[in-house]
Amino acid sequence: MHVVVPFDAREPKTRLSPVLDSNERREFARVMLETVCTAIAKTGHEPTVLSTADLDAEWPVRVDDQPLSDAVNAVLADRDGAVAVVMADLALATPEALDRVFEADGEVVFVAGRGGGTNVVLARHPDFRVDYHGVSIRDHRERAADIGTETTAIDSFRLATDVDEPTDLVEVLLHGEGETAGWLRDHAVSVTVSGGRATVERSE
Amino acid sequence: MHVVVPFDAREPKTRLSPVLDSNERREFARVMLETVCTAIAKTGHEPTVLSTADLDAEWPVRVDDQPLSDAVNAVLADRDGAVAVVMADLALATPEALDRVFEADGEVVFVAGRGGGTNVVLARHPDFRVDYHGVSIRDHRERAADIGTETTAIDSFRLATDVDEPTDLVEVLLHGEGETAGWLRDHAVSVTVSGGRATVERSE
Repeated sequence: MHVVVPFDAREPKTRLSPVLDSNERREFARVMLETVCTAIAKTGHEPTVLSTADLDAEWPVRVDDQPLSDAVNAVLADRDGAVAVVMADLALATPEALDRVFEADGEVVFVAGRGGGTNVVLARHPDFRVDYHGVSIRDHRERAADIGTETTAIDSFRLATDVDEPTDLVEVLLHGEGETAGWLRDHAVSVTVSGGRATVERSE
Repeated sequence: MHVVVPFDAREPKTRLSPVLDSNERREFARVMLETVCTAIAKTGHEPTVLSTADLDAEWPVRVDDQPLSDAVNAVLADRDGAVAVVMADLALATPEALDRVFEADGEVVFVAGRGGGTNVVLARHPDFRVDYHGVSIRDHRERAADIGTETTAIDSFRLATDVDEPTDLVEVLLHGEGETAGWLRDHAVSVTVSGGRATVERSE
Protein backbone atom coordinates (compact mmCIF):
# COMPACT_ATOMS: atom_id res chain seq x y z
CA MET A 1 0.00 0.00 0.00
CA HIS A 2 1.19 3.47 -0.95
CA VAL A 3 0.49 6.09 1.75
CA VAL A 4 0.58 9.79 0.88
CA VAL A 5 0.30 12.74 3.24
CA PRO A 6 -0.66 15.99 1.47
CA PHE A 7 1.08 19.00 3.01
CA ASP A 8 0.77 22.72 2.46
CA ALA A 9 4.39 23.88 2.70
CA ARG A 10 3.60 27.54 2.06
CA GLU A 11 1.10 29.14 4.38
CA PRO A 12 -0.41 26.37 6.46
CA LYS A 13 -3.05 26.66 9.19
CA THR A 14 -4.03 30.30 8.74
CA ARG A 15 -7.12 29.83 10.91
CA LEU A 16 -4.86 29.30 13.91
CA SER A 17 -3.71 32.93 13.69
CA PRO A 18 -5.58 33.98 16.88
CA VAL A 19 -3.16 31.75 18.81
CA LEU A 20 0.01 31.29 16.70
CA ASP A 21 1.93 33.72 14.51
CA SER A 22 2.96 32.90 10.96
CA ASN A 23 6.32 31.30 11.79
CA GLU A 24 4.78 29.34 14.64
CA ARG A 25 2.00 28.06 12.42
CA ARG A 26 4.56 26.81 9.91
CA GLU A 27 6.56 25.12 12.67
CA PHE A 28 3.44 23.65 14.27
CA ALA A 29 2.27 22.30 10.89
CA ARG A 30 5.65 20.57 10.53
CA VAL A 31 5.34 19.04 14.01
CA MET A 32 1.88 17.70 13.12
CA LEU A 33 3.25 16.30 9.84
CA GLU A 34 5.98 14.51 11.80
CA THR A 35 3.40 13.10 14.21
CA VAL A 36 1.28 11.77 11.35
CA CYS A 37 4.22 10.34 9.39
CA THR A 38 5.69 8.71 12.48
CA ALA A 39 2.35 7.08 13.28
CA ILE A 40 2.09 5.80 9.69
CA ALA A 41 5.65 4.44 9.81
CA LYS A 42 4.79 2.55 13.00
CA THR A 43 2.04 0.71 11.14
CA GLY A 44 4.78 -0.67 8.85
CA HIS A 45 4.08 1.58 5.85
CA GLU A 46 6.40 4.29 4.56
CA PRO A 47 4.65 7.66 4.17
CA THR A 48 5.32 9.88 1.15
CA VAL A 49 4.77 13.58 1.74
CA LEU A 50 2.85 15.16 -1.13
CA SER A 51 4.04 18.73 -0.74
CA THR A 52 3.07 21.95 -2.49
CA ALA A 53 6.75 23.00 -2.49
CA ASP A 54 10.22 21.60 -1.80
CA LEU A 55 10.54 20.30 1.71
CA ASP A 56 13.42 19.04 3.80
CA ALA A 57 11.97 15.96 5.45
CA GLU A 58 13.04 12.55 6.65
CA TRP A 59 10.40 10.91 4.47
CA PRO A 60 10.20 10.72 0.66
CA VAL A 61 8.68 13.91 -0.78
CA ARG A 62 6.70 14.30 -4.01
CA VAL A 63 6.28 17.95 -4.98
CA ASP A 64 3.12 19.00 -6.79
CA ASP A 65 1.93 22.59 -6.70
CA GLN A 66 -1.51 21.81 -8.13
CA PRO A 67 -4.55 22.26 -5.89
CA LEU A 68 -4.98 19.50 -3.31
CA SER A 69 -7.55 17.35 -5.13
CA ASP A 70 -5.62 17.47 -8.43
CA ALA A 71 -2.36 16.57 -6.74
CA VAL A 72 -3.96 13.62 -4.94
CA ASN A 73 -5.73 12.45 -8.10
CA ALA A 74 -2.40 12.51 -9.96
CA VAL A 75 -1.08 10.06 -7.36
CA LEU A 76 -4.21 7.89 -7.64
CA ALA A 77 -3.80 7.84 -11.46
CA ASP A 78 -0.07 7.01 -11.24
CA ARG A 79 -0.23 4.11 -8.84
CA ASP A 80 -1.38 0.56 -9.24
CA GLY A 81 -2.74 -1.02 -6.10
CA ALA A 82 -4.01 0.47 -2.88
CA VAL A 83 -3.38 4.12 -2.06
CA ALA A 84 -4.11 5.71 1.29
CA VAL A 85 -4.35 9.48 1.69
CA VAL A 86 -3.89 10.72 5.24
CA MET A 87 -4.24 14.42 6.07
CA ALA A 88 -1.17 16.08 7.60
CA ASP A 89 -3.03 17.80 10.43
CA LEU A 90 -4.36 14.72 12.21
CA ALA A 91 -2.42 15.53 15.35
CA LEU A 92 -4.14 12.76 17.34
CA ALA A 93 -3.25 10.03 14.84
CA THR A 94 -1.88 6.86 16.42
CA PRO A 95 -0.67 3.64 14.81
CA GLU A 96 -3.65 1.84 16.40
CA ALA A 97 -6.18 4.22 14.85
CA LEU A 98 -4.49 4.06 11.44
CA ASP A 99 -4.28 0.27 11.57
CA ARG A 100 -8.06 0.13 11.92
CA VAL A 101 -8.23 1.90 8.54
CA PHE A 102 -5.39 0.12 6.78
CA GLU A 103 -6.66 -3.29 7.86
CA ALA A 104 -10.32 -2.62 7.03
CA ASP A 105 -11.99 -4.52 4.23
CA GLY A 106 -13.51 -2.69 1.30
CA GLU A 107 -12.59 -1.08 -1.99
CA VAL A 108 -13.00 2.42 -0.61
CA VAL A 109 -12.47 3.07 3.10
CA PHE A 110 -13.10 6.49 4.65
CA VAL A 111 -12.63 8.30 7.89
CA ALA A 112 -14.84 11.38 7.93
CA GLY A 113 -13.54 14.57 9.48
CA ARG A 114 -15.61 16.82 11.64
CA GLY A 115 -17.74 19.14 9.52
CA GLY A 116 -17.99 16.81 6.55
CA GLY A 117 -14.35 16.57 5.52
CA THR A 118 -12.60 13.38 4.48
CA ASN A 119 -9.57 12.89 6.69
CA VAL A 120 -8.42 9.49 5.50
CA VAL A 121 -9.19 7.67 2.26
CA LEU A 122 -7.99 4.20 1.42
CA ALA A 123 -8.70 3.51 -2.25
CA ARG A 124 -8.32 -0.03 -3.53
CA HIS A 125 -10.51 0.63 -6.59
CA PRO A 126 -8.55 1.98 -9.61
CA ASP A 127 -11.27 4.44 -10.67
CA PHE A 128 -11.80 6.24 -7.38
CA ARG A 129 -10.87 9.93 -7.42
CA VAL A 130 -11.12 12.63 -4.73
CA ASP A 131 -12.66 16.08 -4.52
CA TYR A 132 -11.92 17.75 -1.23
CA HIS A 133 -14.00 20.83 -1.94
CA GLY A 134 -17.06 21.49 0.28
CA VAL A 135 -18.72 18.65 2.19
CA SER A 136 -16.36 16.12 0.70
CA ILE A 137 -17.46 13.01 2.60
CA ARG A 138 -20.87 13.24 0.96
CA ASP A 139 -19.34 13.72 -2.51
CA HIS A 140 -16.90 10.88 -1.93
CA ARG A 141 -19.71 8.51 -0.99
CA GLU A 142 -21.51 9.48 -4.21
CA ARG A 143 -18.39 8.97 -6.30
CA ALA A 144 -17.87 5.54 -4.80
CA ALA A 145 -21.49 4.71 -5.62
CA ASP A 146 -21.00 6.01 -9.17
CA ILE A 147 -18.17 3.53 -9.76
CA GLY A 148 -20.29 0.78 -8.28
CA THR A 149 -18.52 0.22 -5.00
CA GLU A 150 -19.64 0.25 -1.38
CA THR A 151 -17.74 2.30 1.14
CA THR A 152 -16.47 1.31 4.56
CA ALA A 153 -16.53 3.94 7.31
CA ILE A 154 -14.12 3.78 10.23
CA ASP A 155 -15.37 5.33 13.46
CA SER A 156 -12.40 7.19 14.98
CA PHE A 157 -12.38 10.42 16.95
CA ARG A 158 -8.59 10.59 16.69
CA LEU A 159 -8.69 10.55 12.90
CA ALA A 160 -11.85 12.70 12.68
CA THR A 161 -10.00 15.51 14.44
CA ASP A 162 -8.14 17.66 11.93
CA VAL A 163 -6.59 20.72 13.48
CA ASP A 164 -7.83 23.90 11.82
CA GLU A 165 -9.09 26.22 14.53
CA PRO A 166 -8.03 27.22 18.04
CA THR A 167 -10.69 25.04 19.70
CA ASP A 168 -9.20 22.01 17.91
CA LEU A 169 -6.06 22.59 19.98
CA VAL A 170 -8.12 21.63 23.05
CA GLU A 171 -8.32 18.10 21.67
CA VAL A 172 -4.57 18.01 21.00
CA LEU A 173 -3.77 19.13 24.54
CA LEU A 174 -6.24 16.68 26.13
CA HIS A 175 -5.57 13.61 23.98
CA GLY A 176 -2.29 14.14 22.10
CA GLU A 177 0.28 11.39 22.55
CA GLY A 178 2.88 12.63 20.06
CA GLU A 179 5.15 15.66 20.04
CA THR A 180 2.37 18.00 19.00
CA ALA A 181 0.87 18.41 22.48
CA GLY A 182 4.36 18.97 23.90
CA TRP A 183 5.05 21.67 21.30
CA LEU A 184 1.87 23.49 22.34
CA ARG A 185 2.77 23.28 26.03
CA ASP A 186 6.28 24.55 25.27
CA HIS A 187 4.63 27.51 23.57
CA ALA A 188 2.45 28.23 26.62
CA VAL A 189 -0.82 27.14 25.01
CA SER A 190 -3.16 25.57 27.56
CA VAL A 191 -6.78 24.53 28.02
CA THR A 192 -9.14 26.90 29.77
CA VAL A 193 -12.89 27.04 30.24
CA SER A 194 -14.81 30.07 29.01
CA GLY A 195 -18.60 30.33 29.15
CA GLY A 196 -18.86 26.65 30.03
CA ARG A 197 -16.87 25.55 26.99
CA ALA A 198 -13.27 24.45 26.71
CA THR A 199 -10.95 26.60 24.64
CA VAL A 200 -7.26 27.50 24.67
CA GLU A 201 -5.35 30.44 26.08
CA ARG A 202 -1.78 31.53 25.70
CA SER A 203 0.04 32.79 28.77
CA GLU A 204 2.79 34.97 27.38
CA MET B 1 -24.18 -4.35 33.59
CA HIS B 2 -26.51 -1.51 34.54
CA VAL B 3 -26.76 1.18 31.84
CA VAL B 4 -28.15 4.62 32.69
CA VAL B 5 -28.92 7.48 30.34
CA PRO B 6 -29.17 10.86 32.10
CA PHE B 7 -31.84 13.06 30.55
CA ASP B 8 -32.88 16.65 31.11
CA ALA B 9 -36.67 16.46 30.86
CA ARG B 10 -37.21 20.16 31.51
CA GLU B 11 -35.41 22.55 29.18
CA PRO B 12 -33.03 20.48 27.09
CA LYS B 13 -30.65 21.67 24.37
CA THR B 14 -31.02 25.43 24.82
CA ARG B 15 -27.95 26.05 22.65
CA LEU B 16 -29.89 24.76 19.64
CA SER B 17 -32.22 27.77 19.87
CA PRO B 18 -30.84 29.39 16.67
CA VAL B 19 -32.34 26.46 14.74
CA LEU B 20 -35.13 24.92 16.85
CA ASP B 21 -37.77 26.52 19.04
CA SER B 22 -38.47 25.41 22.58
CA ASN B 23 -41.05 22.73 21.74
CA GLU B 24 -38.92 21.42 18.89
CA ARG B 25 -35.87 21.21 21.12
CA ARG B 26 -37.84 19.16 23.62
CA GLU B 27 -39.11 16.85 20.88
CA PHE B 28 -35.67 16.56 19.29
CA ALA B 29 -34.10 15.72 22.65
CA ARG B 30 -36.67 12.91 23.02
CA VAL B 31 -35.83 11.58 19.55
CA MET B 32 -32.13 11.54 20.44
CA LEU B 33 -32.93 9.77 23.73
CA GLU B 34 -34.85 7.11 21.78
CA THR B 35 -31.94 6.69 19.36
CA VAL B 36 -29.49 6.20 22.23
CA CYS B 37 -31.76 3.84 24.20
CA THR B 38 -32.55 1.79 21.11
CA ALA B 39 -28.83 1.43 20.31
CA ILE B 40 -28.16 0.34 23.90
CA ALA B 41 -31.01 -2.17 23.80
CA LYS B 42 -29.55 -3.67 20.60
CA THR B 43 -26.32 -4.43 22.48
CA GLY B 44 -28.39 -6.68 24.76
CA HIS B 45 -28.55 -4.32 27.76
CA GLU B 46 -31.65 -2.57 29.04
CA PRO B 47 -31.22 1.19 29.42
CA THR B 48 -32.61 3.03 32.43
CA VAL B 49 -33.40 6.69 31.84
CA LEU B 50 -32.16 8.85 34.70
CA SER B 51 -34.53 11.77 34.31
CA THR B 52 -34.75 15.14 36.05
CA ALA B 53 -38.57 14.82 36.03
CA ASP B 54 -41.33 12.31 35.36
CA LEU B 55 -41.18 10.96 31.86
CA ASP B 56 -43.42 8.76 29.77
CA ALA B 57 -40.97 6.38 28.12
CA GLU B 58 -40.80 2.81 26.94
CA TRP B 59 -37.73 2.21 29.13
CA PRO B 60 -37.50 2.12 32.93
CA VAL B 61 -37.17 5.64 34.36
CA ARG B 62 -35.48 6.70 37.58
CA VAL B 63 -36.36 10.27 38.54
CA ASP B 64 -33.77 12.36 40.36
CA ASP B 65 -33.91 16.14 40.27
CA GLN B 66 -30.42 16.61 41.69
CA PRO B 67 -27.73 18.10 39.45
CA LEU B 68 -26.36 15.65 36.87
CA SER B 69 -23.19 14.55 38.70
CA ASP B 70 -25.03 14.00 41.99
CA ALA B 71 -27.78 12.00 40.31
CA VAL B 72 -25.25 9.78 38.51
CA ASN B 73 -23.18 9.33 41.67
CA ALA B 74 -26.32 8.23 43.54
CA VAL B 75 -26.69 5.45 40.95
CA LEU B 76 -23.01 4.52 41.24
CA ALA B 77 -23.37 4.36 45.04
CA ASP B 78 -26.58 2.27 44.84
CA ARG B 79 -25.42 -0.40 42.45
CA ASP B 80 -23.08 -3.32 42.85
CA GLY B 81 -21.24 -4.32 39.72
CA ALA B 82 -20.58 -2.49 36.50
CA VAL B 83 -22.45 0.70 35.68
CA ALA B 84 -22.31 2.45 32.30
CA VAL B 85 -23.43 6.05 31.90
CA VAL B 86 -24.29 7.05 28.35
CA MET B 87 -25.26 10.62 27.50
CA ALA B 88 -28.70 11.10 25.98
CA ASP B 89 -27.56 13.37 23.14
CA LEU B 90 -25.24 10.95 21.36
CA ALA B 91 -27.34 11.00 18.22
CA LEU B 92 -24.76 9.02 16.24
CA ALA B 93 -24.63 6.14 18.74
CA THR B 94 -24.80 2.70 17.17
CA PRO B 95 -24.81 -0.75 18.79
CA GLU B 96 -21.38 -1.38 17.20
CA ALA B 97 -19.84 1.74 18.74
CA LEU B 98 -21.39 1.01 22.16
CA ASP B 99 -20.25 -2.61 22.05
CA ARG B 100 -16.65 -1.42 21.69
CA VAL B 101 -17.11 0.30 25.07
CA PHE B 102 -19.16 -2.35 26.84
CA GLU B 103 -16.77 -5.11 25.77
CA ALA B 104 -13.58 -3.20 26.59
CA ASP B 105 -11.36 -4.38 29.40
CA GLY B 106 -10.58 -2.13 32.32
CA GLU B 107 -11.99 -0.94 35.61
CA VAL B 108 -12.85 2.47 34.23
CA VAL B 109 -13.56 2.89 30.50
CA PHE B 110 -14.18 6.31 28.94
CA VAL B 111 -15.25 7.84 25.69
CA ALA B 112 -14.26 11.49 25.64
CA GLY B 113 -16.58 14.02 24.10
CA ARG B 114 -15.43 16.85 21.94
CA GLY B 115 -14.27 19.78 24.04
CA GLY B 116 -13.20 17.69 27.02
CA GLY B 117 -16.53 16.19 28.05
CA THR B 118 -17.07 12.59 29.10
CA ASN B 119 -19.74 11.06 26.89
CA VAL B 120 -19.61 7.48 28.10
CA VAL B 121 -18.26 6.05 31.34
CA LEU B 122 -18.17 2.38 32.18
CA ALA B 123 -17.25 1.99 35.86
CA ARG B 124 -16.37 -1.46 37.16
CA HIS B 125 -14.55 -0.07 40.21
CA PRO B 126 -16.85 0.51 43.23
CA ASP B 127 -15.17 3.79 44.27
CA PHE B 128 -15.32 5.64 40.98
CA ARG B 129 -17.48 8.79 41.00
CA VAL B 130 -18.19 11.38 38.31
CA ASP B 131 -17.95 15.16 38.11
CA TYR B 132 -19.23 16.45 34.79
CA HIS B 133 -18.36 20.07 35.53
CA GLY B 134 -15.74 21.73 33.28
CA VAL B 135 -13.18 19.66 31.37
CA SER B 136 -14.50 16.48 32.88
CA ILE B 137 -12.39 13.95 30.98
CA ARG B 138 -9.27 15.37 32.63
CA ASP B 139 -10.87 15.29 36.08
CA HIS B 140 -12.15 11.77 35.53
CA ARG B 141 -8.68 10.53 34.59
CA GLU B 142 -7.34 12.08 37.81
CA ARG B 143 -10.10 10.52 39.90
CA ALA B 144 -9.37 7.12 38.41
CA ALA B 145 -5.69 7.61 39.23
CA ASP B 146 -6.61 8.67 42.78
CA ILE B 147 -8.39 5.36 43.39
CA GLY B 148 -5.43 3.52 41.89
CA THR B 149 -6.92 2.37 38.64
CA GLU B 150 -5.87 2.78 35.02
CA THR B 151 -8.36 4.03 32.47
CA THR B 152 -9.19 2.65 29.05
CA ALA B 153 -10.06 5.13 26.29
CA ILE B 154 -12.27 4.14 23.37
CA ASP B 155 -11.64 6.03 20.13
CA SER B 156 -15.06 6.71 18.62
CA PHE B 157 -16.21 9.73 16.64
CA ARG B 158 -19.83 8.55 16.91
CA LEU B 159 -19.71 8.56 20.68
CA ALA B 160 -17.51 11.68 20.89
CA THR B 161 -20.24 13.65 19.13
CA ASP B 162 -22.72 15.02 21.64
CA VAL B 163 -25.26 17.34 20.09
CA ASP B 164 -25.22 20.74 21.74
CA GLU B 165 -24.84 23.36 19.03
CA PRO B 166 -26.18 23.92 15.53
CA THR B 167 -22.93 22.80 13.85
CA ASP B 168 -23.27 19.46 15.65
CA LEU B 169 -26.42 18.90 13.58
CA VAL B 170 -24.15 18.71 10.51
CA GLU B 171 -22.73 15.48 11.89
CA VAL B 172 -26.20 14.08 12.57
CA LEU B 173 -27.33 14.83 9.03
CA LEU B 174 -24.17 13.41 7.45
CA HIS B 175 -23.71 10.31 9.60
CA GLY B 176 -26.94 9.64 11.48
CA GLU B 177 -28.41 6.18 11.04
CA GLY B 178 -31.26 6.44 13.52
CA GLU B 179 -34.46 8.47 13.54
CA THR B 180 -32.67 11.63 14.57
CA ALA B 181 -31.41 12.55 11.09
CA GLY B 182 -34.86 11.85 9.66
CA TRP B 183 -36.47 14.11 12.25
CA LEU B 184 -34.14 16.95 11.22
CA ARG B 185 -34.90 16.44 7.53
CA ASP B 186 -38.64 16.39 8.30
CA HIS B 187 -38.13 19.75 9.98
CA ALA B 188 -36.34 21.18 6.92
CA VAL B 189 -32.90 21.32 8.55
CA SER B 190 -30.16 20.65 5.99
CA VAL B 191 -26.41 20.94 5.54
CA THR B 192 -25.02 23.99 3.77
CA VAL B 193 -21.56 25.45 3.32
CA SER B 194 -20.82 28.95 4.54
CA GLY B 195 -17.36 30.51 4.41
CA GLY B 196 -15.83 27.15 3.51
CA ARG B 197 -17.33 25.44 6.57
CA ALA B 198 -20.30 23.14 6.84
CA THR B 199 -23.22 24.36 8.90
CA VAL B 200 -26.99 23.92 8.87
CA GLU B 201 -29.81 25.99 7.47
CA ARG B 202 -33.55 25.76 7.84
CA SER B 203 -35.70 26.29 4.79
CA GLU B 204 -39.03 27.38 6.22
